Amino acid sequence: MERVFLEWLQSETKSRKHPNLILGVGDDAAIVDFKDGSTVISTDMLAEGVHFLSGEMPLELIGRKAMAVNLSDLAAMAARPVCAVVSLMLPKAMVLDEVKTLVGGMLKLADEFGVAIVGGDTNVWDGPLVINVAITGLLDDASPPAGGWRMNGAQAGDVILVSGDFGHSIESKHLNFTPRVALALFLRDKYYVHAATDITDSLTIDLSLIAEQSGLAMELHEASIPISDDALAKYEDNQSAALNSALYDGEDFELAIVVDPETAKRILEDQKLPCKMTSVGKMTSVDKMTQAETFILVDAQGNTRSLEPKGYEH
Amino acid sequence: MERVFLEWLQSETKSRKHPNLILGVGDDAAIVDFKDGSTVISTDMLAEGVHFLSGEMPLELIGRKAMAVNLSDLAAMAARPVCAVVSLMLPKAMVLDEVKTLVGGMLKLADEFGVAIVGGDTNVWDGPLVINVAITGLLDDASPPAGGWRMNGAQAGDVILVSGDFGHSIESKHLNFTPRVALALFLRDKYYVHAATDITDSLTIDLSLIAEQSGLAMELHEASIPISDDALAKYEDNQSAALNSALYDGEDFELAIVVDPETAKRILEDQKLPCKMTSVGKMTSVDKMTQAETFILVDAQGNTRSLEPKGYEH
Repeated sequence: MERVFLEWLQSETKSRKHPNLILGVGDDAAIVDFKDGSTVISTDMLAEGVHFLSGEMPLELIGRKAMAVNLSDLAAMAARPVCAVVSLMLPKAMVLDEVKTLVGGMLKLADEFGVAIVGGDTNVWDGPLVINVAITGLLDDASPPAGGWRMNGAQAGDVILVSGDFGHSIESKHLNFTPRVALALFLRDKYYVHAATDITDSLTIDLSLIAEQSGLAMELHEASIPISDDALAKYEDNQSAALNSALYDGEDFELAIVVDPETAKRILEDQKLPCKMTSVGKMTSVDKMTQAETFILVDAQGNTRSLEPKGYEH
Repeated sequence: MERVFLEWLQSETKSRKHPNLILGVGDDAAIVDFKDGSTVISTDMLAEGVHFLSGEMPLELIGRKAMAVNLSDLAAMAARPVCAVVSLMLPKAMVLDEVKTLVGGMLKLADEFGVAIVGGDTNVWDGPLVINVAITGLLDDASPPAGGWRMNGAQAGDVILVSGDFGHSIESKHLNFTPRVALALFLRDKYYVHAATDITDSLTIDLSLIAEQSGLAMELHEASIPISDDALAKYEDNQSAALNSALYDGEDFELAIVVDPETAKRILEDQKLPCKMTSVGKMTSVDKMTQAETFILVDAQGNTRSLEPKGYEH
């Protein structure tokens, strides 16, 4: 099965051309040209029962997600996707068509985002399905102000912008979300971004990492948090439950960026933004606050409460 | 546990410097400089019960092997190792010290070979230990004749050279073999190599891939196959069983290169070779033979028999 699958994958990937690819699937390793800038590298591993349930979810969407979470990491760095390698531990019961469906979901999303699948490792075992994708992207030198967005560059007074909506993502969009690559590349070419990350574990967990790595405090504005229609519908009139889902549930795969107030204003007014962005709060100095108040939520009346970074436990 | 482990890994990796590394562990992705040449990318996934038995093998050597198999792929391309990302599915029962021992084995070998561990993904689950390493290396433009050794460049009349010894590797050296990186870099800087691969599945399987991809036939010389002392000891006086172990068992992680006869002679006489190399056969044209005889073994008396590419089934 492995051999037949590899032949299929080789023929699938050979028919796709990529300007950075020198040698693709079929040798001991792939050869790629990264001379136009610095290279961004990330990896994510997904496993049956932890990140997905193959009995309840289409294999194509599971494959898609394995690629999508990696693309989300590249978006968080404002890197242009280039290529990926894919490793699989396949359950013995899986047949070739199922593997093709799984990897077909990856290839489809890879095509959309200009990613060449250049290699991998396929194994069959008694255990459940495990998928690893390692992805690379480019920070093109020719593209000022350029990407390489880090978590530690936020400054006091900066505004926090997020893409899309939050909440209920584990039940709804986590398998078919759009990695925010187009938005990130649009922003990197036009605006100076101080810090960025993607929201995967939860809005509170991932934003708190920006605050922590930048040595700053952060306040979020309750009325500004963009809550998804799905979360609002699920929790009906319970605004508080819907808000908690947005703050803590995770799997949203949206982009968060931190910019100075003037840049934030220009971005929010930009008619060409590839998707909605919302201002959800700002960075503040730590020295004005006690340790307990480095991460707070401000409600519409101006009351504050401390936020705990927490998320969905797989 | 994941958080404490990541802090440990971050502090371990921060203390190590690498000339190509711009940003390491701790952000959404790593940033690496690959402008000096083309980049080689490979990945390997290892799982409990398939590639190792954690009850019978030290965790440090399991971690070492996960890194070593990837280094062996870079050696097969004559690429200088640069950086790696590591993904883990950790069994719930594993404690922090065990994870540190496992990853410590990777870090130790990574240090020896100049590899920076620049990121990864750590998960805990009910299943067995799964490790994925994705590695990158450089084909330095400044280094003629340069690497990027492929499988498909062999020519009729070329000689096949292999490093080290073969046989009994699953029982003996598979956890602590030396990836042939030093040998590959030595050879790439001094000799023109037509084709290369590393011997992982088995001598017959991996050499047959060179023949297949080069569109050639191949003959191996029985008396020349370097059989390991371990295999000879295990099979005592049974030369045939020891030979079969060398031809079919795999997990040897030696380097095979294909060069013209004059280059082969110079390499075999080279006093500075980092390890032993042996001539084991030659490439021949397919059109002189029938389909059944594209891959043959010649004994000391000149008798030939057809070889079947086969290896150890995990």
